[in-house]
Order: sequence, then structure tokens, then C-alpha cells
Amino acid sequence: MEFGKCEVDCLDKVLRFRRDVRGNNFLDKKISSKKIEKILKAGIKAPSVGYSQPWKFAVIKSKKKRKKIYKNFQKEYKKSKHHFSNPTYQKLKLEGIKESYLNIAVFYKKPKRKILGQTSQKKMGEYSVVCAVQNMWLMARVLNIGIGWVSILKPKSVKKVLKVGREYKLVAYLCVGYVKEFLDEPELKKLEWEREMFLDEVML
Amino acid sequence: MEFGKCEVDCLDKVLRFRRDVRGNNFLDKKISSKKIEKILKAGIKAPSVGYSQPWKFAVIKSKKKRKKIYKNFQKEYKKSKHHFSNPTYQKLKLEGIKESYLNIAVFYKKPKRKILGQTSQKKMGEYSVVCAVQNMWLMARVLNIGIGWVSILKPKSVKKVLKVGREYKLVAYLCVGYVKEFLDEPELKKLEWEREMFLDEVML
Repeated sequence: MEFGKCEVDCLDKVLRFRRDVRGNNFLDKKISSKKIEKILKAGIKAPSVGYSQPWKFAVIKSKKKRKKIYKNFQKEYKKSKHHFSNPTYQKLKLEGIKESYLNIAVFYKKPKRKILGQTSQKKMGEYSVVCAVQNMWLMARVLNIGIGWVSILKPKSVKKVLKVGREYKLVAYLCVGYVKEFLDEPELKKLEWEREMFLDEVML
Repeated sequence: MEFGKCEVDCLDKVLRFRRDVRGNNFLDKKISSKKIEKILKAGIKAPSVGYSQPWKFAVIKSKKKRKKIYKNFQKEYKKSKHHFSNPTYQKLKLEGIKESYLNIAVFYKKPKRKILGQTSQKKMGEYSVVCAVQNMWLMARVLNIGIGWVSILKPKSVKKVLKVGREYKLVAYLCVGYVKEFLDEPELKKLEWEREMFLDEVML
């Protein structure tokens, strides 16, 4: 399979216009199960250490469960406040747990067998799962569906709500839904929370 | 920016035909600096927690440095052998450090300031860097350039060879180069090292 200019330009655009979507931007619009499946299937096409495919996905539609997870967000958000004196922090909407069409919790399940390639760096398993998340994010974007990754959550609380065992590690908690708009640039850049870093600044 | 069927099909193909490339498959063919830049720029378009952009890249062309890193691979590989009784393990080529056109070491640099979104889950910084790696991998693939992620390495040794400080954490060590061929399926699947997992098997 040889790719050409058309595919380069296409991928370029997808990477450039992928955004992290927050609550005030989600629409209350159904996503077809075919599209949900397409997003998840993009995830399982990710690279994984020793082809271990250690990812597990939970699709959460239940309002009740999401309310519980949102409560944990509120608690963690409250705890985080004292770190940020910038008043912008109080105004930011940092999740879309309840507003999005559904949530997806992405876990790493530690395999019982030894995994090729994971003998010197244990974290490779989790990293494989992050690759799956990025694949899903990009696939959602070309389907014009937004994803927001919520990290102001205690993994333990999420796991308790979802009743998953100790052998699972929460890697990502994603809010997934159609959106009012995809911003042309990252929101935190627009708000001047952080400035954009250019390539020469991140080269060693 | 609204995407359509054409972009969905394009991304689908890129995700499907991305491969992890090993030493025996790399060609001794120059990659233009424009293309190297394109791959790195795909990396810095990744999502990052609180827009912290905590990635750092080292491009390694030096044969001498690569030889040293290869030595560490050999040591770690030797240590790993006793875990795998399957004779296939002895025959597998698991890296392309010297054969590829260049290597890229990807680091996470822990920011000194508090990062929005990283207060409850410290690992979000590293995870952002993994998203950058996956973007690079996909961009390389549409440029018909192969990437192999080598994880049978001690991060400490790699950092010593590259003379990077304690504040850097090695996330990925990538071998990058043109290839003889992209396999149609993952090598470890073809060899029946692991079987492919289907979507219903990884759903909770």
C-alpha cells in the first residue's frame, strides 16, 4: 500500500483540526451504533507492545453512572483550585460528562502472561492503550464527532462506579458527542493559558 | 471544518496499514529533512494535558551513539530471553536501531509549573507524549516511511548516551526509515505469536 499527496494532506487536516471538546460545546444528538463501532475499531487498530492488545473499553450511556462520575469530577476539581490563581481557571468548563452523548472509559488490563517487548519497560502496556485513544480521537474527528478527555477524576472512583476489578487501570475517560463547533485552535491557546510551542523549542 | 466519506476512508486505510517496522525491513535510503520535519510537526499537533506540550525530541543520526544504544538493546534482550520458551523469540528481529535511516528518542519533560488537568492523574503528561508518538507514526506511514518502536531498552542507558538530564523521561525510542515493504498484517499475528482480538472481546 503506497500513499500519495492526497492522503498526506488528508491526515494533515485531521491532525490539525482535532480538538479537545468540553461540555458547553456538545449537542444532544444521537450517534449511530455504526459510528460508535467505527471509533472503537480505530482504537483496536493501534500498535500494541508484543501485539498484546491490552485495551478494554466501557461505553457508558447511563445517566446515573455519569452523575456519579461527575460528582467525583467536582470533588477533584475543587481540590485542584488552589493550584491556579489565574481567575480563568474558575471559568473554564473542563469536562462534558453529562452533556456528551456517551462516555467511554478506556482501561489497560495487565496480561497474566509475559509480553514481548514489555520486559524492560513495564509502562509499554499503558502506552499501547494511549495509542488506541489517539486513534479513536482521530477517527471521531473525521466522523465530525468530538471527544474530550477528562483527567480531573480519581481512577479509583471511576472504577468503583463501573464495577471493574483491580486488574484494570484507567487510562482515559472520554466524553463523546456531536458538537456545535470545532474551534479552529485549542481553547487554552486562544485564552492565552499557555502559548504554542514551536518545533525548534522542543528539539533536544 | 467538516469531513466527509473520503477522509474517513483515508484515515481508515492509514490506521489499517500502519506497521511496526523491524531491522531487516529498513532500506539505506535518505529521508529529506522536509519529511523528517513533517513527521515531527505531526507530533506537536497531538493533544496535551492543559496544553502543556511536554514533549521533547532528539533526532539521532550518529552511528556511534546508535551503536551504544544497540549494545544496551542486546543486554536487555539477553535478560528477557528466559521469559520466552517459544523458539520463535530467538529468531525475531526486534529492532532496527542501526539499519534505519535515523532514530528519534521521544521524552516527557516534567513542567515546573502546575498543569491544568494533571492534578489528579500525574501520568497525563506522559500520555500526551504517547499521543504525539502515535501522530508521528501515522504521518510517517502516509509518507511511506516506516517506524519501529523499540522498548527492549533501559531508559537510563538511552538517556546516558544522549546526555539528557534527570528531568527527562524516555517515553519512546523510534527507528525511522524507508522500508522494503509494509506487511499487510502485524508480523506477530502472522507468526501466530498472539492472535487478533476482536472488538467484542475487549468490551466491558
